[in-house]
Amino acid sequence: MKNPKKTKGQLIVLSGPSGVGKSTVISELLSERSDIYFSVSFTTRGPRVGEADGVNYFFVSREQFEGMIERNELLEYAEYVHNYYGTSLRLIQEKLEQGIDVLLDIEVQGAAKVRSRCPEAVLIFIVPPSFEELSRRLHGRATDQEEVIQGRLEKAREEYKEIPRYDYLVVNDKVSDAASEIIAILAAEDCRTRNRMHLVEGI
Amino acid sequence: MKNPKKTKGQLIVLSGPSGVGKSTVISELLSERSDIYFSVSFTTRGPRVGEADGVNYFFVSREQFEGMIERNELLEYAEYVHNYYGTSLRLIQEKLEQGIDVLLDIEVQGAAKVRSRCPEAVLIFIVPPSFEELSRRLHGRATDQEEVIQGRLEKAREEYKEIPRYDYLVVNDKVSDAASEIIAILAAEDCRTRNRMHLVEGI
Repeated sequence: MKNPKKTKGQLIVLSGPSGVGKSTVISELLSERSDIYFSVSFTTRGPRVGEADGVNYFFVSREQFEGMIERNELLEYAEYVHNYYGTSLRLIQEKLEQGIDVLLDIEVQGAAKVRSRCPEAVLIFIVPPSFEELSRRLHGRATDQEEVIQGRLEKAREEYKEIPRYDYLVVNDKVSDAASEIIAILAAEDCRTRNRMHLVEGI
Repeated sequence: MKNPKKTKGQLIVLSGPSGVGKSTVISELLSERSDIYFSVSFTTRGPRVGEADGVNYFFVSREQFEGMIERNELLEYAEYVHNYYGTSLRLIQEKLEQGIDVLLDIEVQGAAKVRSRCPEAVLIFIVPPSFEELSRRLHGRATDQEEVIQGRLEKAREEYKEIPRYDYLVVNDKVSDAASEIIAILAAEDCRTRNRMHLVEGI
């Protein structure tokens, strides 16, 4: 679905604390906006139950990941709870030039790197309705031990400090509402004057 | 309809050349978003057929308008094709503080003044699909003489130079699409981090 009012894709960065329900929101978003390319990150962490290589992440070894860093093949990467996470540069550039929006699901360190390399990227942070709700969701997930959960909550507190760097703040109270807000944000960003000047040039 | 995620209304400025169909887009927008307060401007120009005092404009004399300027009662005013147009300050401030979005239909000089006094105002410029189409619409309206139409087209060319000052550019090809884009822009602006920091404070 090529939009004639558009010359270049938008780079969209989605961040939010572990347990906020980002994956569910992303699924909902992509079911409405199937033209968006969801960038699959590389990681050194092991797959969780139900996760598949090339779908949720590309699962690689620490040695492989460090090779990509050395060859400068990553748009951004970060270390998070003792594992690397990173985004391949080449594929993203191709998609954006084809006018395709690209969605990155990355944490705050990576988002800051994307912002510095691509100032026009759209940065969206997703929060739960409250911190108590985040704790409840993390405990409900039951894949992690209490110590890991406490580590994630502590990390979330750190991440919240970075919220002012983000353009938009979306509250994941109800998944469909959160997805609708993101859809509106992307539609609005397409209307940005800087993305449409070609429509009024030459007058 | 009070949005609990919102502490203050948005000030929305809509500009666009005479003949672009702004009034029709605004009607469509307000039928979807009846919670928006549409600010009625003051003007010294005479009412067109079908226009009513207090609905389309407050029609006042040149003397009355100049009195308002002297008493500093206007957020902005401008002279356009030999007539004054201006916006009352007090009513708008009240609405914004009540959390109500306020829509201003003003031209480029006025928009620049609003921007300088309210840097967070959302500025949207509406254009026709092409300049030829604008000429066709102005001739189709048939309320003005050819000389007046030519003046409006010349003015439009001048206004287009101000487009880079606007945050968003909406093309009025189809009224419902233009209104939908504005609705998305307003939804996105409500999600701006600076408008939602109160939701994550104290964590």
